[in-house]
Amino acid sequence: MLSQVDTFNALVISRLAHELQAQGRSVIHMEFGQPSTGAPRAAIERAHQVLDSDPGGYWESTALKARLARHYLDSYGVKIEPEQFILMCGASPALTLALNATFHVGDRIALARPGYVAYRNTLRALHLTPVEIPCGPESRFQLTAAGLAALDPAPQGVIVASPANPTGTIIAPAELEAIARVCRERNITIVSDEIYHGLSYVGPARSMLEFEPNARIVNSFSKYFSMVGWRLGWLLVPMEHLPRARAFMSNLFLTAPSLSQHAALVAMDCRDELEGYLATYARNRQLLLEALPKLGLNNIAPPDGAFYIYANIAHLTDDSLAFCQSLLRDTGVATAPGVDFDPVEGHHYMRFSFAVSTAEVEDAIARITPWFARRARV
Amino acid sequence: MLSQVDTFNALVISRLAHELQAQGRSVIHMEFGQPSTGAPRAAIERAHQVLDSDPGGYWESTALKARLARHYLDSYGVKIEPEQFILMCGASPALTLALNATFHVGDRIALARPGYVAYRNTLRALHLTPVEIPCGPESRFQLTAAGLAALDPAPQGVIVASPANPTGTIIAPAELEAIARVCRERNITIVSDEIYHGLSYVGPARSMLEFEPNARIVNSFSKYFSMVGWRLGWLLVPMEHLPRARAFMSNLFLTAPSLSQHAALVAMDCRDELEGYLATYARNRQLLLEALPKLGLNNIAPPDGAFYIYANIAHLTDDSLAFCQSLLRDTGVATAPGVDFDPVEGHHYMRFSFAVSTAEVEDAIARITPWFARRARV
Repeated sequence: MLSQVDTFNALVISRLAHELQAQGRSVIHMEFGQPSTGAPRAAIERAHQVLDSDPGGYWESTALKARLARHYLDSYGVKIEPEQFILMCGASPALTLALNATFHVGDRIALARPGYVAYRNTLRALHLTPVEIPCGPESRFQLTAAGLAALDPAPQGVIVASPANPTGTIIAPAELEAIARVCRERNITIVSDEIYHGLSYVGPARSMLEFEPNARIVNSFSKYFSMVGWRLGWLLVPMEHLPRARAFMSNLFLTAPSLSQHAALVAMDCRDELEGYLATYARNRQLLLEALPKLGLNNIAPPDGAFYIYANIAHLTDDSLAFCQSLLRDTGVATAPGVDFDPVEGHHYMRFSFAVSTAEVEDAIARITPWFARRARV
Repeated sequence: MLSQVDTFNALVISRLAHELQAQGRSVIHMEFGQPSTGAPRAAIERAHQVLDSDPGGYWESTALKARLARHYLDSYGVKIEPEQFILMCGASPALTLALNATFHVGDRIALARPGYVAYRNTLRALHLTPVEIPCGPESRFQLTAAGLAALDPAPQGVIVASPANPTGTIIAPAELEAIARVCRERNITIVSDEIYHGLSYVGPARSMLEFEPNARIVNSFSKYFSMVGWRLGWLLVPMEHLPRARAFMSNLFLTAPSLSQHAALVAMDCRDELEGYLATYARNRQLLLEALPKLGLNNIAPPDGAFYIYANIAHLTDDSLAFCQSLLRDTGVATAPGVDFDPVEGHHYMRFSFAVSTAEVEDAIARITPWFARRARV
């Protein structure tokens, strides 16, 4: 049997959204976690310069790696050698590489349920066994050290995500430390997806590297840095695993886009502009946190970071995909069904992405308010 | 045991080359297959336009897919639906996806030896078993239908590469057809790496799709289209395998760079400029084919396409890596050792890449001529 790898249900929503738009309908895209703001202006300006001067080959920017190393020292107080950064075409291949290079066929890898749909599928594609730990409101939908300690037998690895997709919840520093301790004791290798770092509403998120230098770290320029289509991410591996990880990179992926590396180096010093985007997300989050409970969505995971709200809709439906399709058809507001993130409980959840403009969030709230009111009466 | 994935020995050469350059030495880079020409001018102009107008999200250009479909009809006479093109960050991830989505753990995949180093390593990384078929001068270093028919038991898959790396040899149409027939009879799935198509000195290369519609095709904008650092390639899969391949793409890789897709669409209509690059390679090839035999390198694979010459140096060394290192140190000409392409016979071979300017080829010949003359006397 070939490994089972599922597609995203959010793509069903997205396709319907584009069909409606093709029919002239107005659609607000809250189904994907995609900033619509584009790269910082100075980064775009740098790309213009480089386009005319650099033919662009198989290239790894040592300047960008050095700048990333400084970022880790400034943000997390951890010292990383620039060469430890493996630049990749986004966080997705970085995660694929980390898992593929680290684990053996059949290894059991723990992860939170709900979680990003691609974790489960990527593990299966790489012939690894996802061990989903149900994480409900009591742990703010996040992994805990106790949950990892209770797994019998111990898994070979764990994927940690903080802030998480679809909930935005952040694991507290003391819990991150406890998770690192359990993993050391039980010989569990940590892969930490830190792609939403920088997007936090409760103070900066901490890196797993502060607690476990052996962790593999996945990150990207797609979220905080608003450079989605530039396809640039990174993987950080401990020095002793670097030769193997780099061999995987050279054979299975090769280098990251050269223009994106030039632009990203500049983007890292565009904090004012990027903090402006974050302020927009903070406003959007506040608007939704005020509006959704009035629609009867009282059961919401606390969105500490990222740009998502994961809401329980069990009182309204047993079929989150059909629910999101109806919502989209009736109001033009596209959202993601919970089944993408949780194959067991996800039929009772939906995810709003608020990585759109504040005007769009306001418009979305205006559109969905009467719709939810009608639903509540049915 | 973790899968064994080796790094490229050409990287050892490349590192030494950059060290020498840092010391002020002049180096001619013939170690990698990388056009130094950059994207066509109109493609760069298009990138400038798009930089200022498109924020760039997770995006797949339907226009580029339609243009690629037209290219397959024009070049090969095969009708492909635009949606069959899966746009990837280069041919490397496209090959990784094709192998990962198609085969089971432990499947045996045939390939020619010598061949591109990443084939062997990528197969191992994905827990597949490379079955290397020794291919010598008698088959122009290429796979044959007879060689595939003789494998017992039949492998589950085969990687075909024409034009090939490191030899540049092209498989004749009748032989491609015979290979397709053997594979149909023996239920062998073909993965055809056509990344060097367009770069041919003996008439256009034929696509495996002309003979086997079920073949998976890997290609990229990095070689003929001279867009290396743009990281854009494609995978073509038969319609019935499309949902699975797209699910792998969404989970393990996500989309290709958006700017590169815009630029590539324009590049496809820059034939005059690109044929000019090809004319340069043709001149370079001719210069080397005239010069190398005078240096005693009489045993050369016929470089029908690509931009490589694979030369036997058994009369000069038993250690191609050390040989290439000496050549580089003494003359500043960087080349790739045969051990990358052939773990058994490669210590007796070296590869020249002539994807450089004609002036550099002339300079390289001038530098290495006295060096080889001295070697021949030792």
